[in-house]
Amino acid sequence: MKLYGYWRSSAAYRVRIALNFKQLSYENLPVHLVKNGGEQHSAEYKALNPTELVPTLLDNELSLNQSLAIIEYLDQMYPQPRLLPDDAGAKAQVRALALDIACDIHPLNNLRVLQYLTGPLALSEQQKQAWVIHWLEVGFSAFEQRLVACAGKFCVGDDVSLADICLVPQVYNAKRFGLDMTAYPRINGIVEHCQQLAAFALAAPEEQADAQ
Amino acid sequence: MKLYGYWRSSAAYRVRIALNFKQLSYENLPVHLVKNGGEQHSAEYKALNPTELVPTLLDNELSLNQSLAIIEYLDQMYPQPRLLPDDAGAKAQVRALALDIACDIHPLNNLRVLQYLTGPLALSEQQKQAWVIHWLEVGFSAFEQRLVACAGKFCVGDDVSLADICLVPQVYNAKRFGLDMTAYPRINGIVEHCQQLAAFALAAPEEQADAQ
Repeated sequence: MKLYGYWRSSAAYRVRIALNFKQLSYENLPVHLVKNGGEQHSAEYKALNPTELVPTLLDNELSLNQSLAIIEYLDQMYPQPRLLPDDAGAKAQVRALALDIACDIHPLNNLRVLQYLTGPLALSEQQKQAWVIHWLEVGFSAFEQRLVACAGKFCVGDDVSLADICLVPQVYNAKRFGLDMTAYPRINGIVEHCQQLAAFALAAPEEQADAQ
Repeated sequence: MKLYGYWRSSAAYRVRIALNFKQLSYENLPVHLVKNGGEQHSAEYKALNPTELVPTLLDNELSLNQSLAIIEYLDQMYPQPRLLPDDAGAKAQVRALALDIACDIHPLNNLRVLQYLTGPLALSEQQKQAWVIHWLEVGFSAFEQRLVACAGKFCVGDDVSLADICLVPQVYNAKRFGLDMTAYPRINGIVEHCQQLAAFALAAPEEQADAQ
């Protein structure tokens, strides 16, 4: 398999964790999101992935985008160890937590959105920073609250799931923007447990060959 | 089942289509997103769904949020007719298209985001409108391009899937904001096929009891 990604992309980071967790080897193909106006906008990459976003996973002839779709694919093709529980209710809970991050936090603080805020909208760096912190706080407050009902060592019980795979990169991103994490003890505890696992540690942005 | 939703919410609209498609009866419980500062922020609703977003589906004791997680749950519990193909590659394609909308278009034009643009950021109505149109155009251009590889009568082949369920509400939303849809003939054709089905037609915002 080949993974087109970027060391600091939260979405690519998710897929790296999943690949590591399932001990699948892959070739890492960096797409630099900033250099030359963003390599994701090149004709070559657009032909592969018209959304001009990372990641893209190639598995033989199959070209897949969207990190959550890729991880669900990996979980179907390489089911051990599982990233989603079998029970329909528990599975929905894992997916909902993953989507709480993937739909309601991450897209608002994505590079292209921040570029639009300071570009066409001509907002200040301070306004951009306030925007980022606002959506992180709104999202993490709800997430912390939701964990009361389902968390164990990880987001849902004591098994690593797709929810943890979304949470860790989002917390990495939040720390990069200087969010004060003291209000989220459950999130912090889960992230600590995740970081002790090689699958998570080796997927960290700083561990990637294209890290700067 | 009980569905907490709002007639004009794209995410609630998706779940209504899925429930109709599977011929599941449900009680519709409107949460007015604008009245009284937004009923989704009430203590009662927050206790049910800490994200303060619609929809929430109750199935006996199970409380589920996130429209895509809800629809996947329905598809597992009530598998006929299917909304996701069995084949792992085709399933990933359906999910990726659904997520192209649910992660990369819809969250940017959601009510709370538009309220932040004209509230704390004090942007003009014109700037807000340009923001909405920008993300719709970016998203639909890529989506139209991606359909070349997979579309038949519907987004992926000739069967209704989760991708169509995400597309129709997003196009409804785009038309509400006055987006010129002429650049997206494949999207338009698929939406037309969907609208001929009762499951889609009866889920339309204007058909809901709380429509204004």
